[in-house]
Amino acid sequence: MVTGKDARIILEKVRTQKPLIHNITNYVVMNYTANALLACGASPVMAHAYNEVTEMTSISNALVINIGTLENDWINSMIIAAGVATHKGIPIVLDPVGAGATTLRTQTAKKILHSGNISVIRGNASEVLALADTQVMTKGVDSLHSVDDAADTAKAIAQKYQCIVAITGPIDVITDGSTTIHVHNGHKLMSYVTGTGCTATALIGAFCAIDNDYLKATACALAYFGVAGELAAKKAIAPGSFMIQLLDELFAMTLTELEQYAKIENI
Amino acid sequence: MVTGKDARIILEKVRTQKPLIHNITNYVVMNYTANALLACGASPVMAHAYNEVTEMTSISNALVINIGTLENDWINSMIIAAGVATHKGIPIVLDPVGAGATTLRTQTAKKILHSGNISVIRGNASEVLALADTQVMTKGVDSLHSVDDAADTAKAIAQKYQCIVAITGPIDVITDGSTTIHVHNGHKLMSYVTGTGCTATALIGAFCAIDNDYLKATACALAYFGVAGELAAKKAIAPGSFMIQLLDELFAMTLTELEQYAKIENI
Amino acid sequence: MVTGKDARIILEKVRTQKPLIHNITNYVVMNYTANALLACGASPVMAHAYNEVTEMTSISNALVINIGTLENDWINSMIIAAGVATHKGIPIVLDPVGAGATTLRTQTAKKILHSGNISVIRGNASEVLALADTQVMTKGVDSLHSVDDAADTAKAIAQKYQCIVAITGPIDVITDGSTTIHVHNGHKLMSYVTGTGCTATALIGAFCAIDNDYLKATACALAYFGVAGELAAKKAIAPGSFMIQLLDELFAMTLTELEQYAKIENI
Repeated sequence: MVTGKDARIILEKVRTQKPLIHNITNYVVMNYTANALLACGASPVMAHAYNEVTEMTSISNALVINIGTLENDWINSMIIAAGVATHKGIPIVLDPVGAGATTLRTQTAKKILHSGNISVIRGNASEVLALADTQVMTKGVDSLHSVDDAADTAKAIAQKYQCIVAITGPIDVITDGSTTIHVHNGHKLMSYVTGTGCTATALIGAFCAIDNDYLKATACALAYFGVAGELAAKKAIAPGSFMIQLLDELFAMTLTELEQYAKIENI
Repeated sequence: MVTGKDARIILEKVRTQKPLIHNITNYVVMNYTANALLACGASPVMAHAYNEVTEMTSISNALVINIGTLENDWINSMIIAAGVATHKGIPIVLDPVGAGATTLRTQTAKKILHSGNISVIRGNASEVLALADTQVMTKGVDSLHSVDDAADTAKAIAQKYQCIVAITGPIDVITDGSTTIHVHNGHKLMSYVTGTGCTATALIGAFCAIDNDYLKATACALAYFGVAGELAAKKAIAPGSFMIQLLDELFAMTLTELEQYAKIENI
Repeated sequence: MVTGKDARIILEKVRTQKPLIHNITNYVVMNYTANALLACGASPVMAHAYNEVTEMTSISNALVINIGTLENDWINSMIIAAGVATHKGIPIVLDPVGAGATTLRTQTAKKILHSGNISVIRGNASEVLALADTQVMTKGVDSLHSVDDAADTAKAIAQKYQCIVAITGPIDVITDGSTTIHVHNGHKLMSYVTGTGCTATALIGAFCAIDNDYLKATACALAYFGVAGELAAKKAIAPGSFMIQLLDELFAMTLTELEQYAKIENI
């Protein structure tokens, strides 16, 4: 049973302990992701060179891998870093951006899933579906428009890869393959800002760095990000000012606000 | 005869149809460009790996190539993508950032122009001039300070490469080599925000994805962006807040505002 | 004796002469750095391909090298550009981001220091310490918590590499190895925005492009950036809106404000 109280406790620890989050992420969102991690109290580092990722992952508290803008050299670095993080026992969060859109992305996401103990996969429905064996897709892509179907897919992937799967959308579905949680926070303006999904992934990294119950940490991170979106939308009604206000809310949100506004539903 | 009514019609379709715009663009502007495309209603994707650009271009409605931060691998991807887009018949918009400043940029821009059916070139006067044969430059660079001379250069390049050429500046000059249009929108604060030229190029991609009269679509996109700049400058007087407000206006501008404020002059 | 009057004079010249600053910098901060340089009145260019850096550095008024996201190809370009800048006699400012955190970064920073006449090194205490010979570190890293100890370290590095060293923090320490200056401007919200250190480095590049007394120019650039932070903090209380307001203040700050608020202490 995960509650807003859990989110409160984890956020407080993120702000106090300032975990170091190693991101190998895409060019588009690097700046915004780093700012979001700083705003939430964590300490971001971005590094991707194969000849330094081992050292960088070794000093970090979580590893975030995002395949939004791939290159062969980067894929090697992602695999090396995943191995180091697995050996060290820190959480690894994978964002399979665009899986399903190109073969390179789908295959790379799967390759990374086999290269270490991935703790959490976060994507939208079609990205996560692309990671499934074909037999999972009994109803096709359209079936994912329903939250229940998304949950079925998420569960299958979670069991397959022995990890937490989070499918984000109007309702976020988080599962470890048996227990499932829905998070009902967020705002539609978030879909008009590039990299909000990637930012959610990075925040999951920060929360998992603090609490090794990754199902709980993932749900709490998504509630936190969703509440920030709701608070931002009260002050900003267009995407430019909204994306700035969103950073402000990650920083300024009180623990009480988070506990009060988090809508975490234990299914 | 292109009018504000045309701009209105195209913007409405962009917002409804949400065309997918494949950008191979520079690191500096990736985030801002993606946010501008989202704000206007389009759907951006950034991908540059040679082993995925073919698939990515194949599912897109327009291709935007921007040479602002070059590397050899990226040049190959640009050429591959241009070939795919040409074969598929989707518009290709080229931004020859820094052509004339280094040999690599000038030669790369020319190489791309020969690698596919480029639909639109958008640059400032000196960048576009760098694409001309020397005999075009009868009056030298200084001559471009006059709009009439810029128009002559733009026409020569348009004829040479059989495409639309847009030279942006205080007055934007758009030509297909015979017909010429001037757009009188915009604000001087736009030159204090990095990547506004690149953003104009990306918006041209979105408009050309909707309307295959590329002369009209280019003029309308530049009017739309210029009106957004004018509206933003009413609320923000320094470049940080201006660049955020500019995104807001791309999103919030009504169709009536666009039609009313667009200053499109058919020469 | 460096004063706020000096800062005023240099800023005025930056705004008038608009020096071209060639940045080979990291992906995370490219956009923000470019916008900060534009806001201060300079003209930024980002270019890193080995086959164009020679030409780009040749037409620039200063070179800024930042190792925040390294790759082998980029290191080669940094070394080539440093050689060209040295030959041409323009200032070179090095930001050894993350030196000390990985071997690649520490070794690369040292390699660049040996590849040309580096004019200024700007980093935080631990980054600069990583450039020292071990014998400099008589008191270990913790000793750097005191400004006096930071000054000792900065002096040793400045003498070793015959350059200006700036260690930024709550109090900035700038030294040429004999004369030392403290700058007392800035605001704690700056540490919640990614790349403020990198931005300080870029602004030092712009100021050094104008005044070849690099000790003075560095102190003045840091005072200018710190005053902008103080002014921004009067209007914005969370990091998202603060980082935007910071750009606004770089642009809108009057020369009189800079002279009046600069807190430059000549030790």
